[in-house]
Amino acid sequence: MTPHFDLSPPAPDLSDALRTCLDNKTKPPGSLGRLEALAVRVGQVLGTLSPAPGQPHLLVCAGDHGALRDPRGQALSAYPADVTWQMVENFLAGGAAINVLAREAGIELHIADAGVAHDFGRRDGLIDVKIAPGTASWFDGPAMSASQCAQALRNGAGIARDIAARGVRVLGFGEMGIGNTASASLITHVLTGAAMDDCTGRGTGLDDAALAAKTRTLAALAGAWHGPHDPFSVLAQFGGFEIATLVGAMLGAAQSRMLLVIDGFISSAAALVACAHAPALRDYCVFSHRSQERGHAIQLDHLGAEALLDLDLRLGEGSGAALAWPLVRAAAAILRDMASFESAGVSRA
Amino acid sequence: MTPHFDLSPPAPDLSDALRTCLDNKTKPPGSLGRLEALAVRVGQVLGTLSPAPGQPHLLVCAGDHGALRDPRGQALSAYPADVTWQMVENFLAGGAAINVLAREAGIELHIADAGVAHDFGRRDGLIDVKIAPGTASWFDGPAMSASQCAQALRNGAGIARDIAARGVRVLGFGEMGIGNTASASLITHVLTGAAMDDCTGRGTGLDDAALAAKTRTLAALAGAWHGPHDPFSVLAQFGGFEIATLVGAMLGAAQSRMLLVIDGFISSAAALVACAHAPALRDYCVFSHRSQERGHAIQLDHLGAEALLDLDLRLGEGSGAALAWPLVRAAAAILRDMASFESAGVSRA
Repeated sequence: MTPHFDLSPPAPDLSDALRTCLDNKTKPPGSLGRLEALAVRVGQVLGTLSPAPGQPHLLVCAGDHGALRDPRGQALSAYPADVTWQMVENFLAGGAAINVLAREAGIELHIADAGVAHDFGRRDGLIDVKIAPGTASWFDGPAMSASQCAQALRNGAGIARDIAARGVRVLGFGEMGIGNTASASLITHVLTGAAMDDCTGRGTGLDDAALAAKTRTLAALAGAWHGPHDPFSVLAQFGGFEIATLVGAMLGAAQSRMLLVIDGFISSAAALVACAHAPALRDYCVFSHRSQERGHAIQLDHLGAEALLDLDLRLGEGSGAALAWPLVRAAAAILRDMASFESAGVSRA
Repeated sequence: MTPHFDLSPPAPDLSDALRTCLDNKTKPPGSLGRLEALAVRVGQVLGTLSPAPGQPHLLVCAGDHGALRDPRGQALSAYPADVTWQMVENFLAGGAAINVLAREAGIELHIADAGVAHDFGRRDGLIDVKIAPGTASWFDGPAMSASQCAQALRNGAGIARDIAARGVRVLGFGEMGIGNTASASLITHVLTGAAMDDCTGRGTGLDDAALAAKTRTLAALAGAWHGPHDPFSVLAQFGGFEIATLVGAMLGAAQSRMLLVIDGFISSAAALVACAHAPALRDYCVFSHRSQERGHAIQLDHLGAEALLDLDLRLGEGSGAALAWPLVRAAAAILRDMASFESAGVSRA
């Protein structure tokens, strides 16, 4: 059974009260720019004029992809598939970018094996929600069966609910999976209707020729596909297990009234699927950064989202979400801790 | 005597070694985007491949301006002059935006009275470097005498050196002074040669008519001025005491081999003056954000600088510098703490 996630917007609607609260702070109205809109989002999701988000957590889901080469043998990724499990080992050892960025920002990290083609055994610090050792190739059929997709969605939702049960109010999302930009490009193309060219980028570093070949291949593949366009069918057809698990985690997190901090292109593909299933999800999300990966702009535009950072990142792992967290924290503190004109005895304009 | 600040570039030149170090980290080369250029800047200024910047400090200089209305009585600022001292009180009480943002980011704050038109008495936490209770109006002549300007420069350099003597390696800069966007616009116009229109903005919130009047007034004033165009003469003519003190603090901080985190339009006007005096200063600076205040883009372009954040901020106080600090900290940690391909056993492309 494909799960269905009911989701209502954050309640009560505090947006007017939050804006009034910000306008009474000792600063010219609007002078904190987009930090003020962010503060409204944080207060709205946390349901208070005085948000204390506490320590954020970040979930990194990893998975491998069956479609790493097109039928003519052209690579879709600049890196070999082994890098997925090697990077999971790097996460567990604490040496990857996301480990460093999470430590600096005070974020607790969760690493999930959603479908890596490697036997890690039982490992401390690794959440085992492996569906299979990698997806099937979408050159041969769906990447995963409907029941595998449903299980990944349930797995993700379960992880998010377990984290929420610890009192966590903010959850960031990241991923690792060699080949998953191709997967995200296909999902983005189908769900937004944007041209394949605009949805396809260099991933970890394809050159011009490889990018052109990847774009042609994906366009042909998507053009030949006539399956159902509902979000979970698209996800099963082209997704990775890490993406499907993230979709479930996002939906579960929003149902638990957490603030969602979305990373870059792959995480936003998961957010696209989740929002297509439950449009109210959009109001629980903060989009952390605008990736250098080409299709990210398409995703953000489709979701009507403006990203906080624009630093030409294209790493994934949740790195942008970790980098943006201090802005979320700052926005909450502005609401919670700044003096008002009245309390500070400052004259108005 | 006008002080002269000798300043050499950071030494030794570690930029190649820093780039190699970043390329060996477990991530696709360049995938951390502008965070990598930031890491090179931090390593270069701190003189190490493994930078540990420690706790940053931030200096907020406050001063009042003689020219708050043009000769026809049109206000140059949306707020009354009393707001300068009222906001200094707010800083001392811990309720302003910069207090909140500095606390969240773990930044130690220093508040300096560089020339506020108010008697604070002796106050814990307020550095008294008051030159005079506000500048003279540039509608009548120079805002300050050459000797006042020299004293403000020395005061700022002294504050920065005192902070450096405590082992601090990162210093941010902010300001408070009703009327100081006009001052910064004039300095920017004269030092960059950009049209007055492009250097003039709404400050704390002028409406269209007031902005047009301010622009006309400042253009006429600058056009009629034929004094010497060396940076400290321009500073004395149009500066505020808070800006002059910041210029000295920036130069003193760079001489002490600190990394400088510059805030928005007013702080960047100080950086313009400091760089015009000692061009090597540019290489010690991180530009934290692109302000909504119109002339900031002109300043950044003139300095060949790209700001880290673009959040439509226009508050000042060092708020953008405080918000950008976590990015600086993250960039340093990437260099210092991330695993290499070799150490983590991860395959290369």
